[in-house]
Amino acid sequence: MSKLFVIGLGPGNAEGMTSACRIFIERADIVVGYTKYIELIKPLYPEKPTFATPMLGEVERCKKAIELAAEGHTVAVVCSGDAGVYGMAGLVLELSEEHVDVEIEIVPGVTAALAGASLLGAPLTHDFAVISLSDLLTPWEIIENRLTCAAMGDFCIALYNPSSKKRADYLGKACDILLAHKPSDTLCGMARNVGREGESTALMTLGELRSAKVDMFTTVFIGNVQTREIKGKMVTPRGYKIG
Amino acid sequence: MSKLFVIGLGPGNAEGMTSACRIFIERADIVVGYTKYIELIKPLYPEKPTFATPMLGEVERCKKAIELAAEGHTVAVVCSGDAGVYGMAGLVLELSEEHVDVEIEIVPGVTAALAGASLLGAPLTHDFAVISLSDLLTPWEIIENRLTCAAMGDFCIALYNPSSKKRADYLGKACDILLAHKPSDTLCGMARNVGREGESTALMTLGELRSAKVDMFTTVFIGNVQTREIKGKMVTPRGYKIG
Repeated sequence: MSKLFVIGLGPGNAEGMTSACRIFIERADIVVGYTKYIELIKPLYPEKPTFATPMLGEVERCKKAIELAAEGHTVAVVCSGDAGVYGMAGLVLELSEEHVDVEIEIVPGVTAALAGASLLGAPLTHDFAVISLSDLLTPWEIIENRLTCAAMGDFCIALYNPSSKKRADYLGKACDILLAHKPSDTLCGMARNVGREGESTALMTLGELRSAKVDMFTTVFIGNVQTREIKGKMVTPRGYKIG
Repeated sequence: MSKLFVIGLGPGNAEGMTSACRIFIERADIVVGYTKYIELIKPLYPEKPTFATPMLGEVERCKKAIELAAEGHTVAVVCSGDAGVYGMAGLVLELSEEHVDVEIEIVPGVTAALAGASLLGAPLTHDFAVISLSDLLTPWEIIENRLTCAAMGDFCIALYNPSSKKRADYLGKACDILLAHKPSDTLCGMARNVGREGESTALMTLGELRSAKVDMFTTVFIGNVQTREIKGKMVTPRGYKIG
């Protein structure tokens, strides 16, 4: 039985990796991943053979990983953050449906919602929703409906992929949808380049977020009705009586 | 300036901890936590002084941690899973509002939604909501509304605290709310004791989940319209064309 591991690297630095992440990368003969993620692990494992493809090469990359495993290699597919959350775990399982000879193990990691939240304070201490604004694989109408439902449920929200060159106005559109159900002074936050060079955070209101500059390395956080600023941090109280 | 770290331990075993988790526990003079979580780290740090309180002692425990930090100790408050998600990060920040002399650092960890998902396969590869069924700190009407909104948004859902002795029928009640908006053959999964002794998983339909046995060590996963079983795993396709 060949082994294929799908591994979440966490935010990108060595400190954010779990022990399991390190153990499974070390067990693999070859590491497969998006070029940028392979670059993250190269300094830690300079001798490890790798196979990298650029963005949008996900299907090709995962097919190659399964092929290598079917040939008898022990293969690690690496993802930033978690292996599942907008990661490759699902695609690898889908593509391996016919490969009964390849055993797949998923190794979870710290996704951007958790890593970004920890820098901002504690925005996600209560029920929350994670939504990607990328419409590459999801019709925009579904994303709109999820934004509306998350706002109506007063979930704290973590937005992934809030912007790209082709979608410069998506965060503004998303804020307009949220503003139909949430006060414009709702506390929001952004975390950029978490665990990497140029790490930064910012707090603002939902009204201000509407025209904030974001990029694909930014995770955006939107509070619920109770979220407030404490000592410069974004905090959603869970409801303990602290009196 | 005193230091207080709020640290997510991940699912509970050493493999699931991040390097940062280990580094920050090692830097602390004393580790503060819920009795069960202190037991998890005792084998790794048998010499480390600890302060433990039982469940429901959260406010007392966090106040003690801040007090120890204000006295000049370097303190680590440990949480299972992530430090923020239903963890102590928010409460520590709330309680430390007046303590300008205590610097707080949050260290994220792999929350049960991610750890459980990795065992089940890849249920959370797309937009998802995390909801706790515990009404200890949250009115049940808010939980009901969030379940309805998550179902209407076709979010994948991770349910925390799906049951306790006093709330034996809560999962059934939650399923009834979801069944008003989701087909009864929606694929669901459960992960129990993740990363600990007696780890197990199970797949079932939403109709079956209604009367499934769960406890407070179980995380429940509810699929979206696209979630399906692949090789015995629960997989939510992200939408890649795999033709």
